[in-house]
Amino acid sequence: MLDLPFHPDRGRPEPVFRQLEEHLRGLIETGRLVPGAKLPATRELAASLGLSRTTVSLAYDTLVAGGWLRAHVGQGTFVAKRRAGSPAAAFTPLTPARSFVWPGLFAARARALAAPRALLLPKGHPPIRYDFRCGQVDRGSLPRSELRSAFSRAVSRELADLAAHRDPFGWPPLRREVAAYLVGRGIQCSPDDVAIVNGSQQAISLAAHVLVDPGDTVVMEQPGYFGAAMAFRACRANLVGVGVDAEGIRTDELARVSQARRVKLVYVTPGAQSPTGVTMSAERRRDLLALADAHQAPILEDDYDAELRYEAPAVAALKSLDPAGQVIYAGTFSKVLSPALRVGYVVAARPLLEAMVLARFHADMATSLVAQAALAALLGSGALERHLRRVRHIYAERLAAMLDALAGAMPGDCRFGRPQGGHSVWLRLPPGVDADAVFRAAVARGIAYTRGEVFHLDGGGAEAVALSFAVLGAQAIREGIALLAGVVEAQVGRRRRRRAAANARLPSPRGEGHAVAVER
Amino acid sequence: MLDLPFHPDRGRPEPVFRQLEEHLRGLIETGRLVPGAKLPATRELAASLGLSRTTVSLAYDTLVAGGWLRAHVGQGTFVAKRRAGSPAAAFTPLTPARSFVWPGLFAARARALAAPRALLLPKGHPPIRYDFRCGQVDRGSLPRSELRSAFSRAVSRELADLAAHRDPFGWPPLRREVAAYLVGRGIQCSPDDVAIVNGSQQAISLAAHVLVDPGDTVVMEQPGYFGAAMAFRACRANLVGVGVDAEGIRTDELARVSQARRVKLVYVTPGAQSPTGVTMSAERRRDLLALADAHQAPILEDDYDAELRYEAPAVAALKSLDPAGQVIYAGTFSKVLSPALRVGYVVAARPLLEAMVLARFHADMATSLVAQAALAALLGSGALERHLRRVRHIYAERLAAMLDALAGAMPGDCRFGRPQGGHSVWLRLPPGVDADAVFRAAVARGIAYTRGEVFHLDGGGAEAVALSFAVLGAQAIREGIALLAGVVEAQVGRRRRRRAAANARLPSPRGEGHAVAVER
Repeated sequence: MLDLPFHPDRGRPEPVFRQLEEHLRGLIETGRLVPGAKLPATRELAASLGLSRTTVSLAYDTLVAGGWLRAHVGQGTFVAKRRAGSPAAAFTPLTPARSFVWPGLFAARARALAAPRALLLPKGHPPIRYDFRCGQVDRGSLPRSELRSAFSRAVSRELADLAAHRDPFGWPPLRREVAAYLVGRGIQCSPDDVAIVNGSQQAISLAAHVLVDPGDTVVMEQPGYFGAAMAFRACRANLVGVGVDAEGIRTDELARVSQARRVKLVYVTPGAQSPTGVTMSAERRRDLLALADAHQAPILEDDYDAELRYEAPAVAALKSLDPAGQVIYAGTFSKVLSPALRVGYVVAARPLLEAMVLARFHADMATSLVAQAALAALLGSGALERHLRRVRHIYAERLAAMLDALAGAMPGDCRFGRPQGGHSVWLRLPPGVDADAVFRAAVARGIAYTRGEVFHLDGGGAEAVALSFAVLGAQAIREGIALLAGVVEAQVGRRRRRRAAANARLPSPRGEGHAVAVER
Repeated sequence: MLDLPFHPDRGRPEPVFRQLEEHLRGLIETGRLVPGAKLPATRELAASLGLSRTTVSLAYDTLVAGGWLRAHVGQGTFVAKRRAGSPAAAFTPLTPARSFVWPGLFAARARALAAPRALLLPKGHPPIRYDFRCGQVDRGSLPRSELRSAFSRAVSRELADLAAHRDPFGWPPLRREVAAYLVGRGIQCSPDDVAIVNGSQQAISLAAHVLVDPGDTVVMEQPGYFGAAMAFRACRANLVGVGVDAEGIRTDELARVSQARRVKLVYVTPGAQSPTGVTMSAERRRDLLALADAHQAPILEDDYDAELRYEAPAVAALKSLDPAGQVIYAGTFSKVLSPALRVGYVVAARPLLEAMVLARFHADMATSLVAQAALAALLGSGALERHLRRVRHIYAERLAAMLDALAGAMPGDCRFGRPQGGHSVWLRLPPGVDADAVFRAAVARGIAYTRGEVFHLDGGGAEAVALSFAVLGAQAIREGIALLAGVVEAQVGRRRRRRAAANARLPSPRGEGHAVAVER
């Protein structure tokens, strides 16, 4: 009998018969089921796949109706010959050989994955002259010669040791350097408390892997970092967003959430909230720790922008206030140095750290040892500290230029805060503006930014925009923001005209309601 | 009411009341539940945790009996004061502050993880002078100056581009170089078919993530690579081992397994079977592909030792015989160059490759870009090819030395094959020898190797040993093998004496049976 490796996915919205129909059509289209091939009787196939006979019959009937199969009473169901004019004949195979049908084989956890579509630029966009997208660093100030000598030193002096190293916790000299570096964040830890990972994304992903069962509630800030949302969703967390104001995460909201359901993990970015740049106040830190303690919920602190401060000195990490070892601290060299290294670190209580390192050993064994040794050299020589002092000035100047340009050029009903760290300004467009139209028009003029909905769990946030001030120089920032302001102005004008037209069509009390509806 | 974040793990052998007891004791030991604190009534706690009241009562009763709690009729249950002489007083807290209780919070997938214990050396072992452990390369012949200039070139010329690169498929120049390099393995592919990952472990782990639902059957060779077993177990695969003979995986056995159950993935190492070093015969390759095609099961080919051949020229990869795109090809620079880079690659059909790259984006975004650019430079300059020619000679000489030494020194009933590639010889100790005793005695003499059970799914394989010939020079190999042979001889003598004694105690027909039992 024909082997049909079909696995219905009951989590998908399509009924199972549609999924089976799609699968069989794929087998026919790719030549795996050849014209004339006999299909199993509906009863047999239903039994072998554990489906009802009705489901199989429905799939067969639909394919017969579409010309893919033909049914002969008393003989069975066969793959139809492709005739000119029949729907099957319209198909042009993509590969010359019959090819393997993959999607039906994917595991449920793979089907749950998706990167935010709003991260993509429209197809065929012009060259980006003004790049305000998040997650980047200033490429002009990278410490080229220091990095070259750090890698050179790692290869010259330590290549044999690196090749023999087997500890998945990481390269011991780098763990020592990280422990020493973290004194600057107020964290007292020993190298044994540090594990090296591939950037903060792996730290978040491992914490999720070790702590989050499917359906467990994970709280994160809203708006909040999309990479964290992806890592939690990959573990099929029930993600709950808690609002952010000028003091950081709303602990009153968190208290209500924690009363209503068991919170398994709270993800926060206290140093400079991603994406708003707000530093969490001392009171909120206390409240957050007390809440997490009362509910025995671990906190994952993502200190991605550690040491990037533009006004006041850096506030110590939340981890520094954590006597019970309840805070998982994740850091990275991606933002303070370069995302091209993909080296980050975790500090956590030993039982959790061991579980995370065991998970990483299963996933990919270790972080590139050469990159680890180069970073250890860079930290040991003081080159990272020197680099930080340099870029703090550069970023402070660019932030000032951006805030100036936004204040001067954007329409009055745009709102934005003054970030105390990080790389971006969180800008709210005027209420009611068509954010899609703004984005399309901006990209058409060579401007790119990170769209607000990327940082929202519920599809909201479209009227906000994250503007990185890391990539461009002050002058280019001014130009780009002026250009973007023009785009926003044009859309505001359009909205006013639309609203006026709507008001003209609908006078009387309902008019206002309608205008409000347009503003949504 | 007291919040007790307890999650029973019904997969553990301990009954739930024991788990609750353990959890509560942990809270008391770490000072989280302080002396005098009142516990919830059994009814309340049972309801809030979704347990039966009996379970909670049993846990409380055991803790009362142990002196951790005290019960006052009509008042409730309280944490006991620590009195001298009571069991609680015997506890010395490890941390000064009351600490967070982690293990009860771990997700089921984290509790399923375990690295093979047999990989560990006994505690307090002497320095290892003769290192025959697998997974290493010759550290003396690493192409130090080529690597230094490759990293230097990457940092000097490409640092800014590397920092801006965002494609999780990998650094385009490296994908081009890998596609060109794979022509040497008989694989025709475009750079678009290649994704860069963190060594072959991540390739295996991603394939498992995308394809294997909990309980799905995955077939692997037996003995087989433990890293693959770990990655599949992390996805809670039902792992089935299929035997290996002088032609590679036993396709007749695989056929029987595939008849009996739906196989979701077949993992093989056709180039040089890990750990036996056998190259899969042409007939077995055909049979394997035909079987996988008939059952629509993808094949994961781990070509970890590509291009390391000591006698015949390399056989083309299985992937080269795969018109339908059913073979997932994983390669790595860990064995042909250095494990310190942690760079590998996958070639797979587009729908699968996209799913794997999406999963890796969730897990850790990208492989270190600096390492990728350095490897691209190394491949582009021909330095890797030159290195391969050099190490093929070195390894061939060492393999010959090892085979000579084994043939000359080991007891006659030791068995070993002649590997056609890879880094190790698979040696079977004389039947009935106490493998634990051999290992302990070898380590005590400064010899380390990889124990056979590491490569077995079922705890078997203890009588085999994988001996890497990569690390030591020919002379050290001869010395180490002679020393190891002495250890084995001593154990054989001991076994003979034991058997003779057993025979003396039990004469007549039962004697032989008993001796056989001792030999197990």
